[in-house]
Amino acid sequence: MAPPTPDLAAILPQIAFNAEGLVPAVAQQHDTGEVLMLAWMNRAALEETLRTGEVCYWSRSRLRLWRKGETSGNAQHLVELRLDCDGDTVLLLVDQAGVACHTGRRNCFFRAVRGGHLETIAEVVIDPQTLYRR
Amino acid sequence: MAPPTPDLAAILPQIAFNAEGLVPAVAQQHDTGEVLMLAWMNRAALEETLRTGEVCYWSRSRLRLWRKGETSGNAQHLVELRLDCDGDTVLLLVDQAGVACHTGRRNCFFRAVRGGHLETIAEVVIDPQTLYRR
Repeated sequence: MAPPTPDLAAILPQIAFNAEGLVPAVAQQHDTGEVLMLAWMNRAALEETLRTGEVCYWSRSRLRLWRKGETSGNAQHLVELRLDCDGDTVLLLVDQAGVACHTGRRNCFFRAVRGGHLETIAEVVIDPQTLYRR
Repeated sequence: MAPPTPDLAAILPQIAFNAEGLVPAVAQQHDTGEVLMLAWMNRAALEETLRTGEVCYWSRSRLRLWRKGETSGNAQHLVELRLDCDGDTVLLLVDQAGVACHTGRRNCFFRAVRGGHLETIAEVVIDPQTLYRR
């Protein structure tokens, strides 16, 4: 079901895009609280996300809009979009299909400093070779 | 108790600081999963955080190291520091004393798009006037 029509004229002026026209967006699995990833949004990505309810980022490497899951199928359905006190960070509560990370792990934060050293703390759950085959 | 001596010579090269020498850091309450805030770290802030176990950021407005809670008392004790797949975002699992947000709310993401409009969804729990009195 499409989300309610967002009042973009009221919402967008509250967002403090940086000098490059971007704002960091943290994606969090809405029911478990797992922090999945951080990516960037420009104004168009934010509008597209609010209008469609499917998360869309700005790819800083490919310099284009990037609908999460467009090639991998691992889409992020938006549950709620939140804004921080300064308006310069977005928090996306999402329902993540499959895995969020291009390495095939559920989330991108799979390296932790433990005992003074970086350790890999999560397993690959989907072979990344199969993620981008389509 | 001080954390184990971090192997900074191995950890720091894994972190992709941006052109300004900064990396975004997402702070999450370790036991509830609540996303508290996003701030920025430079190399010195990261080293200080890992060495002391107390979270330290780089203030982009004051252009200096900023130990969270240094004036408000609302410190963040580091439980675990994680790094994402690209090494360009840090996730801090913390134990937050008091409130994370300078508005006196528990976390900074207290505005949500609901029914197409931005709504304030969290109450002030500590009067911000008392936060910075010391």
